[in-house]
Amino acid sequence: MPALDEYRFRELLESKQYKILRQGLIELAPSDIADLLMRVPSERALIAFRLLPKGLAADVFDHLNGTHQNRMLESFSDQAARAFLEGMPPDDRAELLEEVPAVVARKLLRILTPDQRRITAQLLGYEDGTAGREMTPLFVDLRSDMTVAQALERVRQLAINRETIYECYVMDDHRRLAGTVSLKDLVLADRDNKVAHIMKPDPPFVFTYTDREEVAKKLREHDILTIPVVDAEERLVGIITHDDVADIIEEEATEDIYRFGAVPGTERGYFTSRILSVVKRRVGWLFLLILVNTVTGSIIAGQEALLAEIVILAAFIPLLIGTGGNVGAQSATVVIRGLATGEVHPSRALKIILREAGVGAILGLVLGAVVLIWAYALGRNLQVAIVVSNTLIAISIMATLAGGALPFIFRLFKLDPALVSAPFITTVMDIFGVALYFFIAHLMLRL
Amino acid sequence: MPALDEYRFRELLESKQYKILRQGLIELAPSDIADLLMRVPSERALIAFRLLPKGLAADVFDHLNGTHQNRMLESFSDQAARAFLEGMPPDDRAELLEEVPAVVARKLLRILTPDQRRITAQLLGYEDGTAGREMTPLFVDLRSDMTVAQALERVRQLAINRETIYECYVMDDHRRLAGTVSLKDLVLADRDNKVAHIMKPDPPFVFTYTDREEVAKKLREHDILTIPVVDAEERLVGIITHDDVADIIEEEATEDIYRFGAVPGTERGYFTSRILSVVKRRVGWLFLLILVNTVTGSIIAGQEALLAEIVILAAFIPLLIGTGGNVGAQSATVVIRGLATGEVHPSRALKIILREAGVGAILGLVLGAVVLIWAYALGRNLQVAIVVSNTLIAISIMATLAGGALPFIFRLFKLDPALVSAPFITTVMDIFGVALYFFIAHLMLRL
Repeated sequence: MPALDEYRFRELLESKQYKILRQGLIELAPSDIADLLMRVPSERALIAFRLLPKGLAADVFDHLNGTHQNRMLESFSDQAARAFLEGMPPDDRAELLEEVPAVVARKLLRILTPDQRRITAQLLGYEDGTAGREMTPLFVDLRSDMTVAQALERVRQLAINRETIYECYVMDDHRRLAGTVSLKDLVLADRDNKVAHIMKPDPPFVFTYTDREEVAKKLREHDILTIPVVDAEERLVGIITHDDVADIIEEEATEDIYRFGAVPGTERGYFTSRILSVVKRRVGWLFLLILVNTVTGSIIAGQEALLAEIVILAAFIPLLIGTGGNVGAQSATVVIRGLATGEVHPSRALKIILREAGVGAILGLVLGAVVLIWAYALGRNLQVAIVVSNTLIAISIMATLAGGALPFIFRLFKLDPALVSAPFITTVMDIFGVALYFFIAHLMLRL
Repeated sequence: MPALDEYRFRELLESKQYKILRQGLIELAPSDIADLLMRVPSERALIAFRLLPKGLAADVFDHLNGTHQNRMLESFSDQAARAFLEGMPPDDRAELLEEVPAVVARKLLRILTPDQRRITAQLLGYEDGTAGREMTPLFVDLRSDMTVAQALERVRQLAINRETIYECYVMDDHRRLAGTVSLKDLVLADRDNKVAHIMKPDPPFVFTYTDREEVAKKLREHDILTIPVVDAEERLVGIITHDDVADIIEEEATEDIYRFGAVPGTERGYFTSRILSVVKRRVGWLFLLILVNTVTGSIIAGQEALLAEIVILAAFIPLLIGTGGNVGAQSATVVIRGLATGEVHPSRALKIILREAGVGAILGLVLGAVVLIWAYALGRNLQVAIVVSNTLIAISIMATLAGGALPFIFRLFKLDPALVSAPFITTVMDIFGVALYFFIAHLMLRL
């Protein structure tokens, strides 16, 4: 393969042969790549730039002249640039587009509006729901060799257009995070002291790819106002502030509640989206649940002979499976929420599941006694009433076992425990419920 | 009635005739009341003190000597004092015990540990779940006639044992909140400027009795680090800081999720509480749901003749009522969460309910078509299959209507919409489901 010249560069770019283009580019010197980029329109230069490995991209960016740097940054929010990218298969795109270098990210984030950031997320290489999408670059950066007086002067200068000045970030020569100094510490310190002496070294931080739920947890754990966000090479890119944490917790709770109610999706604007898209979101789960419920129907259909003989048995089906679902939903609720808030640790799974089963047994005995009386009053058949009552006890235990265990099992398979929704557990208990019912009926009525 | 002398004071206190005691006390001068209080053991003096109207209590407190003031404050966390109070009927207690005066509250909160505060909540007059229970008295207070230099000096002095120094509170001569100054503003301002000139007047605040969910909303709305808490006379008592907001939002979400899963209660420590107390918490809802489900059973029992003739009808009951519950749970989920986060306003109730019904109609048509095929395959009876399919459409519409409307109706009756739990809506749909099923069966099978 010949070395990449300008003609071939343009050709590969036009024909969207991005993998070959990347191969060709990484064999060149950073200055040569910069030369090539400056010869094509900026939105196309941007595409080529985004294909470069992160380290190389930072070098190439340094070799662009100021005008071209700015043009490139501007084209990040450009429609044309995204249109190019959308021509790539999603998996190729993910493979080729690395996180932008810290120096580019910081400059970019400062010129992009929040709306533009959302639009350009693909080009930034930050996935939805990660720290990269939540952070702001508007922090105060200090150097460790500054005096407190110099630091305070810098804080004063930057204060107007910084998101917060209460936590300042000290960077080393490689723009890596060396420590933090709070404004409180600066105000309390001697003015001639060095920042290096009063900063807290090794502060907690998150990566741009850290899940935002993790970010919220970390901020609360350390009880801090802001948390720094670094890129894969630990260069400081931005910060996430305390007010984002409240939003994150609320949105995560919405997500969990939606899942528990078997409503997929989390994005706001539910009430403004079109009816058909609402139907589309809900129909999948319902269809799956109906599929599971056909098993329940088949079990009952298989008992036609028994039901024809003792018709009253059918009258107790909704009560039995309904209670199973309700008991199971209660157990699932406490375990799912416990896992989400960290109150429950997966290592205690067995103990918690057994405990739930104990609760189920007692609930079953209490409710079974009540149902025994009602069932006898309705059917005037003591044998049937005893079958119903015993089934309720068995269902209670099984429901608490299922409700307690399923969230742990989902977690084991890397699924969100909140997917064990109330409708899900209800439907599962429908099957177990009728199966237990007819099993006990056959056993006790000796049919 | 004779004026209250020491003998009668002791007598009324011992015999727990608190209403008469209060009547007698308020006729005396503050200094005379203080005299009486200093003659009895401090935990009894405290009881008498807590019966006083708020304004009078503040005056009486001023008249106590230092030793007795401290003894009284200490006895707030005293077991004996609470034992006395527990002798009162709860409604009388609520009527007699006013919020403690701001000056007492601030001093008290500083000496009580968080654990003690929880225990003494009753004596403080702050109800569970209100701002009074969340606040800290460790704030920086300034006067408006201070210079910026003086203010900064005070901030430096207080910094060590204050929860935050980033927001400072300016009080007027009556210890009412006059404004706030951020440390940022102090750092940026000219040192000779007056606090009065740079403070923000009329800052947002909450009352000690404000619901903590309301507090969290207000803090987020104004995007501030802390919010001041004032008593009924607008005297500054404490502040609530940003890190409490995250806790509040998380706990409120837990409460909603628990309710939606029909698990009463919210307190942490669920997994450490005793099994019997867990059973106690859950059994009430289950019992209620079983009660409702007896209606479902009775409806089915009333159809013995029809079921005896076409036994296969029973096989479709779980699928029909199950789908009704699931569809209803989805609608309830989005409406409940929308109301909790403020995305849905009650004034839009009708529009949202009708929209849900539209979603239900489309879902019913889609799912009904699928179920028609399955029902025919299972029962080999086209008429029955058509009954099942039509019932599913009707149930879908009714479930979205119920799921969409019930949270609004609950709210109308001042109940938490989250009480429309998945188990609740499932159980309601059980009744409607079987009723619709047999109604349609009779109609179409002409029986």
